[in-house]
Amino acid sequence: MVRPGGESMGEFELIRRYFTRPTPKAVLGVGDDCALLPMAAGMQMAVSSDMLVAGRHFFPDVDPRTLGHKALAVNLSDLAACGARPVAFTLALALPDANPAWLQAFSDGLFGLADAHGCELIGGDTTQGPLNICITVFGEVPAGSVQRGSQPDTQAILRSGAQTGDDIYVSGTLGDARLALEAMQGRIQLSAAALASARQRLEQPTPRVALGLALRGIASAAADISDGLLGDLGHILERSARGATVNTELAINLLAMHAYFTGASGKFGNMLSPQLTLQCVLAGGDDYELVFTAPAAQRSAVLAASHSSETPVTRIGQIEAAHGLRLVDGHGAAVANTFTSFDHFAP
Amino acid sequence: MVRPGGESMGEFELIRRYFTRPTPKAVLGVGDDCALLPMAAGMQMAVSSDMLVAGRHFFPDVDPRTLGHKALAVNLSDLAACGARPVAFTLALALPDANPAWLQAFSDGLFGLADAHGCELIGGDTTQGPLNICITVFGEVPAGSVQRGSQPDTQAILRSGAQTGDDIYVSGTLGDARLALEAMQGRIQLSAAALASARQRLEQPTPRVALGLALRGIASAAADISDGLLGDLGHILERSARGATVNTELAINLLAMHAYFTGASGKFGNMLSPQLTLQCVLAGGDDYELVFTAPAAQRSAVLAASHSSETPVTRIGQIEAAHGLRLVDGHGAAVANTFTSFDHFAP
Repeated sequence: MVRPGGESMGEFELIRRYFTRPTPKAVLGVGDDCALLPMAAGMQMAVSSDMLVAGRHFFPDVDPRTLGHKALAVNLSDLAACGARPVAFTLALALPDANPAWLQAFSDGLFGLADAHGCELIGGDTTQGPLNICITVFGEVPAGSVQRGSQPDTQAILRSGAQTGDDIYVSGTLGDARLALEAMQGRIQLSAAALASARQRLEQPTPRVALGLALRGIASAAADISDGLLGDLGHILERSARGATVNTELAINLLAMHAYFTGASGKFGNMLSPQLTLQCVLAGGDDYELVFTAPAAQRSAVLAASHSSETPVTRIGQIEAAHGLRLVDGHGAAVANTFTSFDHFAP
Repeated sequence: MVRPGGESMGEFELIRRYFTRPTPKAVLGVGDDCALLPMAAGMQMAVSSDMLVAGRHFFPDVDPRTLGHKALAVNLSDLAACGARPVAFTLALALPDANPAWLQAFSDGLFGLADAHGCELIGGDTTQGPLNICITVFGEVPAGSVQRGSQPDTQAILRSGAQTGDDIYVSGTLGDARLALEAMQGRIQLSAAALASARQRLEQPTPRVALGLALRGIASAAADISDGLLGDLGHILERSARGATVNTELAINLLAMHAYFTGASGKFGNMLSPQLTLQCVLAGGDDYELVFTAPAAQRSAVLAASHSSETPVTRIGQIEAAHGLRLVDGHGAAVANTFTSFDHFAP
């Protein structure tokens, strides 16, 4: 097809131009039937795959540079939740057409984040079709060295390891991505500065890879927060066969924008109800922070991990033997849980 | 959403019901942030990813059982081309809706082939969107034991290993998938029996995994034929910096349907021109056979590999030092190469 630049670009030229880079970690990268990854003795391969669809996971007119970043970030976030070190990824891409400007910006955003994590693009697929981005990411994690009952033989942090009495922590801030979405869809108003800050969180999330690595051997369980805090904490509870109580007063401070709405100026005071604030924080989605648990005896180790990874963490609750997820306010009074996580096939 | 059966099914229920199976090879399968694969010492992980889009790779109304088969088959075919043993795969699936009958048939077709190859579904993603299937497959292959010049340190069969004088072989038959497509789109007519046979090849290709494994240490280069023989042989030539001559008279016999059109009855004699026959065989696409090269000294070893893997192979030409791909007829006379492979972004 002839492009504004007068160029004609086929599938292989597209791959060569935008998606072929040196792969020093791989035995073999892009260009053969398979890529080949070496494996160090005693290591396991952590694998995760996410598919992003236009109109569902991002606006069709989103800046392709941020889209390239986010498509990899959501996958690196899964590695972070397991305490795995990123190694490589594959990219499968369906495109309505081969637009050079779009491809250049997308690949710039993608490789910007990939390079920051030493994560190599080793293969994939491109095809014509409705815009769809599927990345599969590979990380490495040591096999197990200590017996943990019926747990799998690995040093990866699993969802299934939470124990009664463990503290529950969240990294960074929550709810800002949802707040941006609410504003971009016209349901609330934000100042330009607040929107820019929230939108940065929605469009260019920071996967907590360094924190995940630092928490290996310390955290008893972890998950990344993609569907919303309560939903993803719920996965830990289900896999660990435990319950929990979460303090909503502690949680509400996780909203980075919170100060905007409660500050002395009261400038935005009327725009964000307490209920919407909690909705954003507890079930906003698209946060890509970590929710994790650790024994109380590990509190100083958790803080050290937070410090070494330069990632703030906040303790928001406790794992309990009684199943179910209970919310309480700052006085310990029950808060009704009317917050639902995102489900792609919800009724 | 309420389905005919009166059921309501969310994303996690969908995964649990149709895509969660035992994973004895994996340390950890579906249900956590990452899956975990163990790696044996001295092995490498072969990785390939393919994305199938409705309307481009398959008819939107295709039988979902055959679609499940084909989505995995095209990936296993990449492992076969490298001589890698299938271990596991991830599945990312965008669906317009969660239709239980469709999902049951799709997963039946998928797992039917997966089980036949001991290839475990270890993770993935499901989302709402235009039908799109992205599978990433993992195989294992031994690291290198013999030095092969500047070649990567692996026992995998690469595209880059063809040497001047090597024979060129093709497995199985070629062109039947394209013939089915021509018939289904009304450009040619086939008898019901011929169409059923050709359509089987289009919709349920057989990945040549056993042949690929048997050719390790024997073949100098290999690729799977997805875009068409000449195109995929071209990849071998490009990566090996060699040329080739292919005998079209030998190649034309690779069309399994060939007898239908040249038989004594002459029943279909007028329907398939020699040019269309060659187009189907040389550049039909969707064949999922292997094209591979081997030194002449390995002819008996190639036949033994063919025999042990119960996969016919046909010798169709030779690798040459002079770059370019030349076609000759049975008398050695040049045949014009007017056959083009499929390109998803072709002008």
